[in-house]
Amino acid sequence: MIESGKGKVFIVGAGPGDIGLLTLRALEVIKGADVILYDRLVSKDIIELAVNAEKVYVGRDVGDDYKHQEHTNRLMLDYALKGKNVVRLKGGDPFIFGRGGEEAEFLADNGIEFEIVPGVTSAIAVPAYAGIPLTHRALSSSIAIVTGHEDALRQERRVDIASIAGSVDTLIILMGISNLKDIIDTLLTVLDEDTEIAVIEKGTTEEQRVIISRLRIIRYKVDKTCIKPPAVIVIGKVVRLAERLQWFRCKVEVL
Amino acid sequence: MIESGKGKVFIVGAGPGDIGLLTLRALEVIKGADVILYDRLVSKDIIELAVNAEKVYVGRDVGDDYKHQEHTNRLMLDYALKGKNVVRLKGGDPFIFGRGGEEAEFLADNGIEFEIVPGVTSAIAVPAYAGIPLTHRALSSSIAIVTGHEDALRQERRVDIASIAGSVDTLIILMGISNLKDIIDTLLTVLDEDTEIAVIEKGTTEEQRVIISRLRIIRYKVDKTCIKPPAVIVIGKVVRLAERLQWFRCKVEVL
Repeated sequence: MIESGKGKVFIVGAGPGDIGLLTLRALEVIKGADVILYDRLVSKDIIELAVNAEKVYVGRDVGDDYKHQEHTNRLMLDYALKGKNVVRLKGGDPFIFGRGGEEAEFLADNGIEFEIVPGVTSAIAVPAYAGIPLTHRALSSSIAIVTGHEDALRQERRVDIASIAGSVDTLIILMGISNLKDIIDTLLTVLDEDTEIAVIEKGTTEEQRVIISRLRIIRYKVDKTCIKPPAVIVIGKVVRLAERLQWFRCKVEVL
Repeated sequence: MIESGKGKVFIVGAGPGDIGLLTLRALEVIKGADVILYDRLVSKDIIELAVNAEKVYVGRDVGDDYKHQEHTNRLMLDYALKGKNVVRLKGGDPFIFGRGGEEAEFLADNGIEFEIVPGVTSAIAVPAYAGIPLTHRALSSSIAIVTGHEDALRQERRVDIASIAGSVDTLIILMGISNLKDIIDTLLTVLDEDTEIAVIEKGTTEEQRVIISRLRIIRYKVDKTCIKPPAVIVIGKVVRLAERLQWFRCKVEVL
């Protein structure tokens, strides 16, 4: 399958932050890489595992998009054509809001061999480190994962957060912090004002911070709490287990 | 935090099957375990990593439930009280339909220290190995993960598959094979009959088999295809990328 002379591209999920959540396959391909193209949310410990690789930062600044993606695609292609093995390293899982699918399409279209290395997604592991199981026989049999990024709420594949929140037991919102007030107002059109919400900042790292509240309360306190990205938002009854199931030492604030 | 003399319980996700998708932390705690309590869907290669541990099978037979769960809880407690380090090893991620949350509650209630080791979930990685990215800027900005197990469709936290399917771009159904015909009939009440569906059997393993079809077609062919669990069902436009993004050698059938 490999055309002679061309390198291979590995589209790799680095997990949510804790290096222990890296997969064995990810470690293997990172250690064997000639080049690492990495995003902003990949932890430094993980990048440093690539002892022999050229390391190129390709993270996007918020608001930017197509140009950066084109630039990243071009780098993957150029390095692969030079015979280099390239690791395209992303936070979390590459196929959950990571544009991994589009990058794989680009590689397929250009005849470059690729492999997907799924990662532990922040959407599931960050709540787990906050003591929140996303499913539970008595509390949650269905989950949805959406992006709360403003762009996504506007563009063609618009996320209808109200409709989704009304149909699943547990809603997980990634990249929703800058938009949190609007999101809560939208949720309040369909959910009870006492619905539990957790906001987990820098999940799975030493700096993890968990805020537990209810929609009607957090609505007025968003600015005061100074929540900063990256953060994962969890909405639903499972949030009530967080205090009881704390196992990872971190700061928990109940609003 | 450890009370002297008591062991600790690690609730660990073993990932979807491919041993390469095991996390570094999972490998570490499996290697250091005194006892492994493992489920049916954990691959043999992974169980064999526990070279020094007593290995106890605690998988449930389909249809069974509370008795087996009580038995498993009792084993975790007994071993921990004897000072053993116990790994409770589950397929996929322990907090996605794995009852990990309930087991953690039981341990917390009984004063046993525990740690959650999230795993790569089959819900995301199995589609990835079939060339299906669950999100994609042009095709999918929201995903839902539900169980298709008959019990779940009946019990209190009933999964309203029609309502969920109508509100997200991509729907992933776990444990839905024995119930597939009914699920498709339900989906056809809200989705276009040409909606793409993929069924992936034994995903991420050497025996992976991918069936790509549309709701109106697969409906009449479920029996003929002889799909057996474990399988992951994906519904939505992202399925159309599967053929183009094949990277993992496996059998692909287009119905």
